[in-house]
Amino acid sequence: MYNKEIYIARRKALQQTMSHGLLLFLGNGNVGFNYADNEYKFRQDSTFLYLFGLDMPGLAAVIDCDNNRTVIFGDELTLDDIVWTGPMPTLAERAADAGVTETLPSALLFKHIENAKADKQKVHFVPPYRGDRQLLFDELLGKNAQPSLDLINALVDMRNHKGPEEIAEIEKAIGISVDMHLKALELAQPGRTEKEIMAAVMEVCLREGYYYSFPAICTTHGETLHNHGYIHTLREGDMLLLDAGAETDMHYAGDLTTTMPVGSDFTSRQREVYEVLMNTYHTAHNMLKPGITYRECHVKAWTTIAEGLQQLGLMKGNPTEAAEAGAVALFMPHGLGHMMGLDVHDMENYGEVHVGYPRGAQKDPRFGFKSLRLARKLEPGFVFTVEPGIYFIPELIDQWRAAGKFTDFICYERLDAWKDFGGMRNEENWLITPDGHRHLGKAKPVDADQLLAAKAGKFEC
Amino acid sequence: MYNKEIYIARRKALQQTMSHGLLLFLGNGNVGFNYADNEYKFRQDSTFLYLFGLDMPGLAAVIDCDNNRTVIFGDELTLDDIVWTGPMPTLAERAADAGVTETLPSALLFKHIENAKADKQKVHFVPPYRGDRQLLFDELLGKNAQPSLDLINALVDMRNHKGPEEIAEIEKAIGISVDMHLKALELAQPGRTEKEIMAAVMEVCLREGYYYSFPAICTTHGETLHNHGYIHTLREGDMLLLDAGAETDMHYAGDLTTTMPVGSDFTSRQREVYEVLMNTYHTAHNMLKPGITYRECHVKAWTTIAEGLQQLGLMKGNPTEAAEAGAVALFMPHGLGHMMGLDVHDMENYGEVHVGYPRGAQKDPRFGFKSLRLARKLEPGFVFTVEPGIYFIPELIDQWRAAGKFTDFICYERLDAWKDFGGMRNEENWLITPDGHRHLGKAKPVDADQLLAAKAGKFEC
Repeated sequence: MYNKEIYIARRKALQQTMSHGLLLFLGNGNVGFNYADNEYKFRQDSTFLYLFGLDMPGLAAVIDCDNNRTVIFGDELTLDDIVWTGPMPTLAERAADAGVTETLPSALLFKHIENAKADKQKVHFVPPYRGDRQLLFDELLGKNAQPSLDLINALVDMRNHKGPEEIAEIEKAIGISVDMHLKALELAQPGRTEKEIMAAVMEVCLREGYYYSFPAICTTHGETLHNHGYIHTLREGDMLLLDAGAETDMHYAGDLTTTMPVGSDFTSRQREVYEVLMNTYHTAHNMLKPGITYRECHVKAWTTIAEGLQQLGLMKGNPTEAAEAGAVALFMPHGLGHMMGLDVHDMENYGEVHVGYPRGAQKDPRFGFKSLRLARKLEPGFVFTVEPGIYFIPELIDQWRAAGKFTDFICYERLDAWKDFGGMRNEENWLITPDGHRHLGKAKPVDADQLLAAKAGKFEC
Repeated sequence: MYNKEIYIARRKALQQTMSHGLLLFLGNGNVGFNYADNEYKFRQDSTFLYLFGLDMPGLAAVIDCDNNRTVIFGDELTLDDIVWTGPMPTLAERAADAGVTETLPSALLFKHIENAKADKQKVHFVPPYRGDRQLLFDELLGKNAQPSLDLINALVDMRNHKGPEEIAEIEKAIGISVDMHLKALELAQPGRTEKEIMAAVMEVCLREGYYYSFPAICTTHGETLHNHGYIHTLREGDMLLLDAGAETDMHYAGDLTTTMPVGSDFTSRQREVYEVLMNTYHTAHNMLKPGITYRECHVKAWTTIAEGLQQLGLMKGNPTEAAEAGAVALFMPHGLGHMMGLDVHDMENYGEVHVGYPRGAQKDPRFGFKSLRLARKLEPGFVFTVEPGIYFIPELIDQWRAAGKFTDFICYERLDAWKDFGGMRNEENWLITPDGHRHLGKAKPVDADQLLAAKAGKFEC
């Protein structure tokens, strides 16, 4: 964890913003895989990590703004436990690392909350996302207790602006994430299987003592956006799409996507589309600066795709109009990117709209637009992905064609020949600086020639 | 999944045993890692797998014994879903694979249970082990509903006796588990780290499309029994303890432990203790046959350890008495083994005592004895681990010595020199046959010479 001064400063800032009430934070517990004691890898809650840094199960904490008191609740190991785990620091020692001087046994949390309710204190909490924490909130606060929008907003304002200690950690995550992608580039050859490449990519991450920040997508069918099957064998002429990233031992995420040719090179058709993708990617990240909205960047990316696909005879009409109308969502049905930090989709449990949209704004409900996780005006300290993609999704093409959607913009009669094309995406991670933007982490092969160099082991990060 | 006839036969047998009531089974849902949509790898509930074989989240099922009716509850993918996932089988098609002809939307489960309650049907279920399923049971049946011991007993009687289709699957799991251990033997050299070996071991499992059946222990400090830190670098003279196994895509487990020398060979002191361990291991598995209790095998293992440690000057007195008294628990505080199947500790969520003890029996509460997961009379079809270990746990030695425990059997004054020894365990998986026992899966290096051969790449499985 960081030096305790960082956690003390974060909690002080949060307390000043909130000014009143009791802020209640439940750290995560362990979750059983197929029975209680066969546990999934423990992952501490990100809000708890951000404010307290303590990375072990079964903790809770309160920040009492009205009485200027911070308490961590937990239980000491018994002598019996120590026989199985070896000696461990006490709860008080752990709390001291986070700059908290008061600790209490877990069992006293209920009484503490009862007292707060008796004192008419408002109890603030952020939305839980696991059943066991929901059960605990229900017991503590009753079934109808609602998360606090004030607390969500206060935390979003802090966590959306990354400090230098966070950016350094994200760049470490990206460094290992790049190594994961280089491993895939090395292995993406005909005859290999998706699952063996996925396994080798995971090894790169695990051998550092890191974990993966999300379940990797490693597929020759990139057009299926949520594809975790790993069932295919790579063939000459395929493309392999890898969307994978590491999470450091401090739990900051990297999130990269590479689409690479299997075998020696892209086919000429693949290369044509890849050039459109590269043009889109470079256009998008070159726009990044404080004050621009990410919605503008997204629409510009769609526009660039429309221009490129018009060259290939697959779209028609005015590209900007096609983008603003939502027609390009046929080829890129997802948003240009999302905030990143302690969560790969940062703070997604608070609600996407609170993180990625202006306060009080609603999402545009149209297909494509509704998948924009980030749309707001960019500010220095924002860290997010830029990840345009181009996909030929047979089910979506058929659905739109049958519905007669956007016939002014889409050349459906030409698309039948493209239903076996697949999909491609390039994704990297960027920071907004006071005067523009900065690419985060070491270089990943991006342009087609860089991909080929990396496959030959000749790419310099 | 297996042919549907297998699931039909299992459900029919269960229905005949239960004869009355509504049996309610909740398949597992997804669990969020750090927010709802960043999911841990999905693991279906083992009871659901055993009876229905369907391996996807969000299902439920009832077997209505009173009305001879079986229904699977779930939801179809929407057209929107299919854009992200590609085409998928319908719920009815999936249910047909399990031999179930009736399906209903998830939302109707509540009404179905209401009707059953109105008809005064008893609703049977097994204990949940995840918060989200607990929440669902609470909603369906009320907060005070208790799991059904009748259903637990019926399922234990079935699942404790493995069919040939299950044994074949367990042997596949063990095959990959052996490969994981061979990888560790190849890599266990001075200068390597625990985490890189753990990562390489995981790769062996993942590249097959398998998963791990439990979080691996990979440590030079085998005396710490629950050790998942992976923080050490291997040094000449260390031993590396690997306790790791694979779970097949049908979710049957392997569970093996190997203790190997780092570098070229065991030290002479390590080899002396390893010979005691081998003597214990071979003595224990040679006893296995129908009718013997696993408690007897466990006590015999403790006795053999006592005999060996007496030779080394660390114990004294009558070895059998030392074992029966629980004194050998200082060196082996865990049980000799546990049932294995769809769970690596099979059916542990039902309650250990229901699976591994005679009906109605209680555990012996004494230290050591209380850790016996399996104690009952062995029967043909039982599959379980044999896993004796010998550990020198400094905290436990100090605790017992201070308490003056078993001074007739333990030579505490000699143990100070052994507190840096560490710990060792050997574990393999065995089946009770009608006339004895069978070692399951391909051969793993066990004896010291086999370990050295495997390190040199010369072990034939």
